[in-house]
Amino acid sequence: MKAAYIEETGPPDVIQVGDLPTPEPGQGQVLVKVGTAALNPIDTYLRNGANYWELPKPFVTGSDLAGTIEAVGPGASKFVVGQRVWGTNQGLVGRQGTFAEYAVVDEHWLYATPDSVSDDAAAACALTGVTAHMGLGADNARLKAGETIFVHGGSGGVGSMVVQMAKAIGATVLATAGSEAKAELCKELGADYVFNYKTQNVTEEVLKICPNGVNVIWETVREPDFDFLVSIAAERCRMVLMAGRDARPEFPVGPFYVKGCSLHGFVMFKATPEEMAVCGEEISRWLAEGKLKPQIGKVFPLSEAAAAHQLQEDNTLRQAGTLAGKILIKP
Amino acid sequence: MKAAYIEETGPPDVIQVGDLPTPEPGQGQVLVKVGTAALNPIDTYLRNGANYWELPKPFVTGSDLAGTIEAVGPGASKFVVGQRVWGTNQGLVGRQGTFAEYAVVDEHWLYATPDSVSDDAAAACALTGVTAHMGLGADNARLKAGETIFVHGGSGGVGSMVVQMAKAIGATVLATAGSEAKAELCKELGADYVFNYKTQNVTEEVLKICPNGVNVIWETVREPDFDFLVSIAAERCRMVLMAGRDARPEFPVGPFYVKGCSLHGFVMFKATPEEMAVCGEEISRWLAEGKLKPQIGKVFPLSEAAAAHQLQEDNTLRQAGTLAGKILIKP
Repeated sequence: MKAAYIEETGPPDVIQVGDLPTPEPGQGQVLVKVGTAALNPIDTYLRNGANYWELPKPFVTGSDLAGTIEAVGPGASKFVVGQRVWGTNQGLVGRQGTFAEYAVVDEHWLYATPDSVSDDAAAACALTGVTAHMGLGADNARLKAGETIFVHGGSGGVGSMVVQMAKAIGATVLATAGSEAKAELCKELGADYVFNYKTQNVTEEVLKICPNGVNVIWETVREPDFDFLVSIAAERCRMVLMAGRDARPEFPVGPFYVKGCSLHGFVMFKATPEEMAVCGEEISRWLAEGKLKPQIGKVFPLSEAAAAHQLQEDNTLRQAGTLAGKILIKP
Repeated sequence: MKAAYIEETGPPDVIQVGDLPTPEPGQGQVLVKVGTAALNPIDTYLRNGANYWELPKPFVTGSDLAGTIEAVGPGASKFVVGQRVWGTNQGLVGRQGTFAEYAVVDEHWLYATPDSVSDDAAAACALTGVTAHMGLGADNARLKAGETIFVHGGSGGVGSMVVQMAKAIGATVLATAGSEAKAELCKELGADYVFNYKTQNVTEEVLKICPNGVNVIWETVREPDFDFLVSIAAERCRMVLMAGRDARPEFPVGPFYVKGCSLHGFVMFKATPEEMAVCGEEISRWLAEGKLKPQIGKVFPLSEAAAAHQLQEDNTLRQAGTLAGKILIKP
């Protein structure tokens, strides 16, 4: 099968596109014919040598996929051949990735794709959608209908999912964006109020709308400013933190605990299959109901996987501003 | 009635002991004949001018009390005259305090004192016990039987309660203390492992016992070191923060969220009466069952309330090391 893989870590051009043996599904696994794969920042970090865990060799890049069951391994019973599925959390924690014509996946990482939902849409919602759902859910922010949420960076990969899911839950959404176009996107996604953090005093604007602060804060910025976050927090505000590996900001202990705030850190890929399935199944439902609309930025053929990595990295690490939405790969 | 009160804030000697009119219970209130009051650091902060809220004038100092129902106001139905009760959260948020022969209290802040439990014991467990219970409970650390907890400062007011309650819940307790005598106290309270933070490498010692880190961390230190806390945290560790108003330590964002940690800040006095009653009723039960043993440091007559404040402050703010256990006041 054709696959985009690396034999050693490094810049985007270490990615080779060529033939690898089509894998066979083992115990509890299925073989998926990939319809669409999607790219996430973490795929570029791994390719670049982030030493989170040992990579298989060769290593097929990519975490997200949507496609069709091609074969079912021994002991696998969740799906049948021909069924459409999607999932994430591949290419992580030592598993092989999804930028290939076929991928072998443990069936517990996959969810049924509703008939009305395309592979592109499902793949575009995978890692970012599961991350957003997990952070809003029972173990983290516990966002409820009628509450207010502030999404710091509402037009990004995860942020755009959080905005839509918060609306699906029934919350009032305040979001920030760094340009008029991105602010417009946040509005289209359903945000009730959007502030341009480059031109507006966001603290003032948020407190005008929510004089007692917001119930939930979702931080996507890589250098969180905890003084700012606590200043817009309501009593018992739950804050979600899932980015900023190297940040070491000052933490205002007194204001944080006196307001009874809590801070919830997590990474999607450490969740159990059961936890992730709760997210995946609701995402499928929301996709079918039109409550989640994936933002697709650019579609590449598998042969241009290196260019796809380059575009992602330019925008994640160097704020090139040349991408709005997910990068998809078509094998 | 005799009461210890202030007309203006300042050092301990602003406290006057003299006659004030015995208050009458209003709607939903009871009059308690105070058997024992207890002193907490927050009482000294308020006396000294901490401007958390407006104080009544004159302001009777003290948050904790145990005693006997002397009179029942209109609409109050939880207790009858002669019944023994205890409570905390008085002298706070604009309410009058407990350092007096009598105190009027909203009945929903009071819990029945078991027959076998003395007023001294109940008063000594009030604010610190409710604080510990609340931090370990459903809204914060959610400590479960079989888990491990690290109590940073296990011999202090709240810390000594946390150690005992964690044992009552069925957890394994690791605690720190700053002297051999305090370490001995932690052991007596039930701590399974105690480390002297002045002479031992606590990170190493904790990781020897719990190679994957601890499930819950209770921080009582006023300058939390988040690098240290995250270094001993297990995956999904819940950390409790309830002290250190002016601290601004650096916060290691990456290590915190990659481990899926959460940080829970709270102040006892903002809890609802219903939330506090959950704590109060279990504390009464644990006291009756001998699972909670209050540490009583020194007992003062009401007339020496100023000296009591001085002793508390010397030890809270200036680490005099001349107090181990609660300060009680006998009207």
